Amino acid sequence: MARLLVSKRASKTPSSPIRSLAPLAVKAKSEGKKVFHLNIGQPDIESPKEFLDAVQNFDKKIIGYEASPGNLDLRKAWANYLKTNSGYDVSFENILITTGASEALIFTFMCCADPGDEIIVMEPTYANYLGFSAISGVNLVPVLTRKRDNFRLPSREFIEKSITNRTRAILLCNPNNPTGTVYSKEEIETLLELCEDYNIFFVLDETYREFVYDGQKPVSILENHKNNERVIVIDSLSKRFSLCGARVGCLITANEEVLARSLSIASARLAVPSIAQVAATHMLKTISPNYLTDTIQEYETRRNTLIKFANTTPGVNILPPNGAFYAIADISVENSTEFCKWMLEEFSDNNETLFLAPAQGFYIESKLGLKRVRIASVLDSSKIERSMEILGKALSVYPKKI
Amino acid sequence: MARLLVSKRASKTPSSPIRSLAPLAVKAKSEGKKVFHLNIGQPDIESPKEFLDAVQNFDKKIIGYEASPGNLDLRKAWANYLKTNSGYDVSFENILITTGASEALIFTFMCCADPGDEIIVMEPTYANYLGFSAISGVNLVPVLTRKRDNFRLPSREFIEKSITNRTRAILLCNPNNPTGTVYSKEEIETLLELCEDYNIFFVLDETYREFVYDGQKPVSILENHKNNERVIVIDSLSKRFSLCGARVGCLITANEEVLARSLSIASARLAVPSIAQVAATHMLKTISPNYLTDTIQEYETRRNTLIKFANTTPGVNILPPNGAFYAIADISVENSTEFCKWMLEEFSDNNETLFLAPAQGFYIESKLGLKRVRIASVLDSSKIERSMEILGKALSVYPKKI
Repeated sequence: MARLLVSKRASKTPSSPIRSLAPLAVKAKSEGKKVFHLNIGQPDIESPKEFLDAVQNFDKKIIGYEASPGNLDLRKAWANYLKTNSGYDVSFENILITTGASEALIFTFMCCADPGDEIIVMEPTYANYLGFSAISGVNLVPVLTRKRDNFRLPSREFIEKSITNRTRAILLCNPNNPTGTVYSKEEIETLLELCEDYNIFFVLDETYREFVYDGQKPVSILENHKNNERVIVIDSLSKRFSLCGARVGCLITANEEVLARSLSIASARLAVPSIAQVAATHMLKTISPNYLTDTIQEYETRRNTLIKFANTTPGVNILPPNGAFYAIADISVENSTEFCKWMLEEFSDNNETLFLAPAQGFYIESKLGLKRVRIASVLDSSKIERSMEILGKALSVYPKKI
Repeated sequence: MARLLVSKRASKTPSSPIRSLAPLAVKAKSEGKKVFHLNIGQPDIESPKEFLDAVQNFDKKIIGYEASPGNLDLRKAWANYLKTNSGYDVSFENILITTGASEALIFTFMCCADPGDEIIVMEPTYANYLGFSAISGVNLVPVLTRKRDNFRLPSREFIEKSITNRTRAILLCNPNNPTGTVYSKEEIETLLELCEDYNIFFVLDETYREFVYDGQKPVSILENHKNNERVIVIDSLSKRFSLCGARVGCLITANEEVLARSLSIASARLAVPSIAQVAATHMLKTISPNYLTDTIQEYETRRNTLIKFANTTPGVNILPPNGAFYAIADISVENSTEFCKWMLEEFSDNNETLFLAPAQGFYIESKLGLKRVRIASVLDSSKIERSMEILGKALSVYPKKI
């Protein structure tokens, strides 16, 4: 009998480069090692008391389905939060609640493009976009951004070369994961113009919207173009409120057809989990703005610590990021995936080691990721400082250096 | 400028026939009408105290990501629950936790079939399978089951005629939504043999596994074929424990490649919500078997009430179901969707009305659904009795009868 094979699309779905090394970290810990996790955007900042209290006060007796577009109170609370905190006047009817930003992105891929169509992304790119691409059959077309250019966008003309008759959208993560770049209002306007000229969607992943440093102001497409029919915004509570595990995100658009078709897809999966929606509603209604400003301040401190200690570590060259909580670093190895594995499996300093994300997973065509890692500055400053010490020691004894 | 269109696949994604009338029910209620919801499998039975307590006792300070395959304790608790409650000895490593059975089904469609491939389903079929088909580009090929045959499976030869060189799986919901049929061990064996002969997957949606009446025993593929590489089981806490809104389901298979590829897809969406997983773990570890036996008893009582009152209602002809909590009824109208809308928008009896699911959404090719509805016996017996009274009165005055 012939072997029973899985589908071609399943075979092509990449393992998340961040998550696929996770079992090695579990093993290292089971052997008694302490592992510093700078590999993943999982903050160690406490979730808001307003959310945790709402969970503990959850008093429904039946955990029933919520409405497919999301809990109505949550949609209204989110719209109100955008208005009062950022001044963006978005109708709650333009907000579809999703199981994390991940699901909002999957809906967007499904709604904007058919299999074989193309979506343009900046390279390096958020690794899971590749997963959504494989699931949806949509090809990602990378436009390279370079460390020597501070990962800023290339010229309009350069980007334009990547547009074909199959291009359906440009997708930009701003502030950027994995580079920590905050794209300027002018860069956003340039991309929007391109999308207008070629009649394609403009998808903004604004999961890290407020995480901008050095006195910058957040740059959001919602400020001036929230009613543009080609604009789709992906949003999430995960990073802003240290609620990664709540899996509450949303898709925001004024495009009625995208909303309607996303809702059809959403109704097939029935609903987003109820408890987190109820708790998120209470939180958005009652939380003080101080939570977010304190959080941003803390991430700025961590970023400063990362820059300071990374750049005095031999074998490490980091580009100081000005947003989000990631940075791309060159390290003096020939294959960062092998090095990251080795750190988990073989290396330790005083019984401690470090988990970093190899940057290969963030690159589609370029080989630049081979000698790079993404560092998430999501732990407190003392741990970041110690992590850079561990990294330096690991690099100094790593047998397969360049 | 040309209009900016959504993708073809999005345009083809059907609205859930159950959910698309939901706004009419909201409107009816806003006008002060009481609406009995027999349209959706949302039980009114209280969720287990063990789950609700665990939510209120949730004491983590950071709502962090769970592992992509699911919380390890939950996977172990689920395996243990299957073993102690049903005697099925499934390894926790063969269980992948998903955001509801819906996500397990999406992963299965993605892993088993490529766009243009085919999956065979029994007609009438669970409406959301059509949604998953549209999302994944997989064609559903319906095999008609007939009310006059008690919705039992047709002969092996009849089913075999639907198999083509694009067929990748047979998908069966047992006990069945929407017919309430419990397929026998022999019927399951016949389908499995077919799948063996044609080297295709056999997917069993066992969301309603224990909901069988009249002294029957549950029929599960896990009993004898849990290690068969072509078998994929979809499971869920939603109905069994009245936890629809928790969105905790799983995919069970001994097929290593399906597990690995499902995990790749799962890692792209990062994780299943944390709070529900923690609460579900506590519940599965501590719940008394009485909860489920009491729940099944209650549903059997409700089913008996439904049969008794439906079949004395003029214009209604119901097939007594022997499992799950659904029944397909013929009603004396020419278009059940129009009738269901009319009941919500125009009809009321003593300011009360009824929400039923038009059966059209459960049929793919056949027009038989036009004159049928699906009735979910998910409310207590007095409400079901009253609902049948309302249905009788509505049919007696409905202007567009046959």
